[in-house]
Amino acid sequence: MNLATEEFAPVRALFESMLDADAAYSAQLAVYRDGVKVVDLAGGPESSPDSLTGVFSCSKGVAALAFSLLVQDGLIDVDAAVTSYWPEFARHGKGGITVRQLLSHQAGLVGVQGGFAMEEYNDLPAVADRLAGMAPLWRPGSGTFGYHALTMGVFLEELCRRATGERLQDVYNRRIREPYAADMFLGLPESEEPRFRPVRFADEPGAGFLDPHSIAGMAGNVQAGNLLGLPNIRSVRAAGSCSGAGVGSADGLARVYAGAITGVDGLPPYLTPETLAIMAQEQVWGLDRVFCDTSAFAVTFMKPHPRMDFGSAQAFGHDGANAALGFADPLYGVGFGYVPAWNEEGGTAGRGMQLSAEVRRAVIASR
Amino acid sequence: MNLATEEFAPVRALFESMLDADAAYSAQLAVYRDGVKVVDLAGGPESSPDSLTGVFSCSKGVAALAFSLLVQDGLIDVDAAVTSYWPEFARHGKGGITVRQLLSHQAGLVGVQGGFAMEEYNDLPAVADRLAGMAPLWRPGSGTFGYHALTMGVFLEELCRRATGERLQDVYNRRIREPYAADMFLGLPESEEPRFRPVRFADEPGAGFLDPHSIAGMAGNVQAGNLLGLPNIRSVRAAGSCSGAGVGSADGLARVYAGAITGVDGLPPYLTPETLAIMAQEQVWGLDRVFCDTSAFAVTFMKPHPRMDFGSAQAFGHDGANAALGFADPLYGVGFGYVPAWNEEGGTAGRGMQLSAEVRRAVIASR
Amino acid sequence: MNLATEEFAPVRALFESMLDADAAYSAQLAVYRDGVKVVDLAGGPESSPDSLTGVFSCSKGVAALAFSLLVQDGLIDVDAAVTSYWPEFARHGKGGITVRQLLSHQAGLVGVQGGFAMEEYNDLPAVADRLAGMAPLWRPGSGTFGYHALTMGVFLEELCRRATGERLQDVYNRRIREPYAADMFLGLPESEEPRFRPVRFADEPGAGFLDPHSIAGMAGNVQAGNLLGLPNIRSVRAAGSCSGAGVGSADGLARVYAGAITGVDGLPPYLTPETLAIMAQEQVWGLDRVFCDTSAFAVTFMKPHPRMDFGSAQAFGHDGANAALGFADPLYGVGFGYVPAWNEEGGTAGRGMQLSAEVRRAVIASR
Repeated sequence: MNLATEEFAPVRALFESMLDADAAYSAQLAVYRDGVKVVDLAGGPESSPDSLTGVFSCSKGVAALAFSLLVQDGLIDVDAAVTSYWPEFARHGKGGITVRQLLSHQAGLVGVQGGFAMEEYNDLPAVADRLAGMAPLWRPGSGTFGYHALTMGVFLEELCRRATGERLQDVYNRRIREPYAADMFLGLPESEEPRFRPVRFADEPGAGFLDPHSIAGMAGNVQAGNLLGLPNIRSVRAAGSCSGAGVGSADGLARVYAGAITGVDGLPPYLTPETLAIMAQEQVWGLDRVFCDTSAFAVTFMKPHPRMDFGSAQAFGHDGANAALGFADPLYGVGFGYVPAWNEEGGTAGRGMQLSAEVRRAVIASR
Repeated sequence: MNLATEEFAPVRALFESMLDADAAYSAQLAVYRDGVKVVDLAGGPESSPDSLTGVFSCSKGVAALAFSLLVQDGLIDVDAAVTSYWPEFARHGKGGITVRQLLSHQAGLVGVQGGFAMEEYNDLPAVADRLAGMAPLWRPGSGTFGYHALTMGVFLEELCRRATGERLQDVYNRRIREPYAADMFLGLPESEEPRFRPVRFADEPGAGFLDPHSIAGMAGNVQAGNLLGLPNIRSVRAAGSCSGAGVGSADGLARVYAGAITGVDGLPPYLTPETLAIMAQEQVWGLDRVFCDTSAFAVTFMKPHPRMDFGSAQAFGHDGANAALGFADPLYGVGFGYVPAWNEEGGTAGRGMQLSAEVRRAVIASR
Repeated sequence: MNLATEEFAPVRALFESMLDADAAYSAQLAVYRDGVKVVDLAGGPESSPDSLTGVFSCSKGVAALAFSLLVQDGLIDVDAAVTSYWPEFARHGKGGITVRQLLSHQAGLVGVQGGFAMEEYNDLPAVADRLAGMAPLWRPGSGTFGYHALTMGVFLEELCRRATGERLQDVYNRRIREPYAADMFLGLPESEEPRFRPVRFADEPGAGFLDPHSIAGMAGNVQAGNLLGLPNIRSVRAAGSCSGAGVGSADGLARVYAGAITGVDGLPPYLTPETLAIMAQEQVWGLDRVFCDTSAFAVTFMKPHPRMDFGSAQAFGHDGANAALGFADPLYGVGFGYVPAWNEEGGTAGRGMQLSAEVRRAVIASR
């Protein structure tokens, strides 16, 4: 597949200029417009049209799409207390925290004291138990929020398990991945292993002391070392933690997001405008307590803002540690996926968001 | 008029040094102290003592002075729900938003989807209707605020119309402009047209893609192009939108603010300390969702802060897109107006705020 | 005393490298681990092992340790309204402000209008009265907070006096300083005067106009001039205002903090985990209205964050204007004190916090 419809020719041109500028650069890019694939490109030595690789926290966005179905079905009320689904969560003054607050990074449970071990990351109920027993790292309800990099998936999974008895990964497979035929996996089956390409990353030199027991250190579970290699461990990608162990392609990412808002290839959208009004509304904005920089979050989903300028005010999605990016933008009718082979610079100046800007320009020009 | 009393000689000296440093620079500066005019200067090829020009969002501050009279008269309660005056506002979860929140940039209604057309800007009830029908761009009550550049005036005007049946511009004319003889117009009459000087501005080169449907893009209604030329259109300045279509002189701005707190030329102040305690108290501070930089707002009025350092903690006012500036500072007993002919750098380092610092130094030195 | 146990040899090496790099540099450093002194160093021409000097706002942290005993004893409830102890505080809409909000810099009472005089600073009930009569500088409950540099101690002292009839300094002496034999004084007795070394500081050139009546100007009481010389006035250090007039040594600071969490030299800890859960929990985070930069505060205590990276998420303490630093870190079992002779750069890049990072590395390496 090497597709760019005529109106998206500038997007292809920009992508090709990126490939021309850097012989090592490898990536996939896919775009759906109004439910029809309009861009599907792969280039560079490490990416092929059908390769799959780790997309890190893009997994949170994919998991949140599945979680949205639970909200749509009335199985989860985002304004209910977390304890109405998960009574053990109440300890240490957490009884009043709502699902909405927990899933918009406001609960102050960014990690567990002392960190957790790799084994726990593959089987998360133990981490859920440890989190339920913690005191919040800041006063709940104070308006403070900070990116729950490695625990957000635990909350999504545990709430699903408590409310439905089912794993969120299984909900995702049954209701999104399989019917929409999306190459985006939360738990990569053995059968797809031949298509997997290991995540490529350069070991970064340490930037001084990051206290492993500080808020940022706990959020990154830094006592366990660099997390960029995790998806390269078979057991990790087989478990497919919703926080960050998903594996997919750019087309897979674009397809699950397009499926949500417009449907794809004649299939209807699986989320209603009413569900989007709940799940994609911005809940928090400001200086993230973990990043110490600006963030904006809906219920789990990232929202666009100047440091992460991926779409209109209606857009919702998530990036990953390697700068992979998946989002839906109902205003433009777009589902978007970008997956680089090497970890690269993210944010507004990064390639993924520059490509998203070119996509938006193309939609505006063709209206 | 070319006035600076002896204690304000350093202000005149600073203003003249600015004129000397830049042959194209043109501006007016006026200051009242304890109700008496102490500075009234004009210089440069484009400004004369009696010229009038666009003051952009300084209009918001002027309109808020008139709105304060409605609060003072008990016609508007800032803690009431907006819907108690404007029932149609309730849609999409906006029923709980108070007047105070709406008028301190917290409602998440910075623009309308798809933007609005120039014609609508001249006759705003249609825009008010579209805003009433919108879902907030962020969760109301979350503490997020962002500069409602083009919709704040719509809210002020619509609330006035609903509460009194009168246009806010007419309240302003009858109770402030006419009795205080102020050369500051929300709606420039035909009779004053000969004094109007077009706003001068350089077209800035575009700084990359600003998504017209992003929050910042909607706030600036950027699909309509550069807004700096709007006051140069007769129908726009005749309508005198409270968001930004006011026309005036530095003396006019200084006079309406001095009139509010000290009165002028023997006329009594038109606002009471009790009204100021409501209207001039800081309501929000932090990273503005539109600017992605710090802002501080009272009820409509801007408050001084390090990026906008125009006065004491008691000061309240507003700047404009061209760096025009009008404010009152009850602590110093000062009403201040500054109107440049060309749009220039604003903020603490800008000429207007540097002149305001010199005014404060002079007051302190003469006490 | 010139002590560094074997596992803390890298801390000694870093301190000595700082001394080697700057002949004028003088400071004391002390660390307790699990209740045992493990580091006690002094170096440079201006510091000796038993010298005492001003520690500025480290005094707030020391006072808050004593205040914690009132909370522990049930004499103060941080969730009660301030007015339940101090009825006169209710004026101008302050009736709903809780002790927790007041003591986490949220009340908007950073200074008194017009500033206060040196004499008042030595005898604070008059300042307390003036503060009780003020309108808040921002809307209480809005989430805004800003460093109450010179009024926080007034609130701690007044609440103690109202709740117990005793001076907070006396509570501190009786229950912490004397039993734990700590060289850290809130009110330096005449008998200790021979050990006092004047604070050394360079007069900084003024950085432009800071309006004395702006929020930042009021917070710094700038109309009174540079405050760095205050502890050098006998009457000021004899009064020992909790805002900033404490005098001590690095060992004194480390000892009061270690005493709180682990006890020292066989004495039990004087605060319980339940008290720490209240007093050391982060209450506010974000852009401080006074500093216009990031801050994080518990109930009076500072919390670590990227700009002030002194410990784990459990740490609590306070720095001073001269970059003195005292804190406890329950996770590491550490009490820490650092006192420079000259005022120096603070924050994460400063010597005190760099030394704290080395202490934490050493604890981690020796576990």
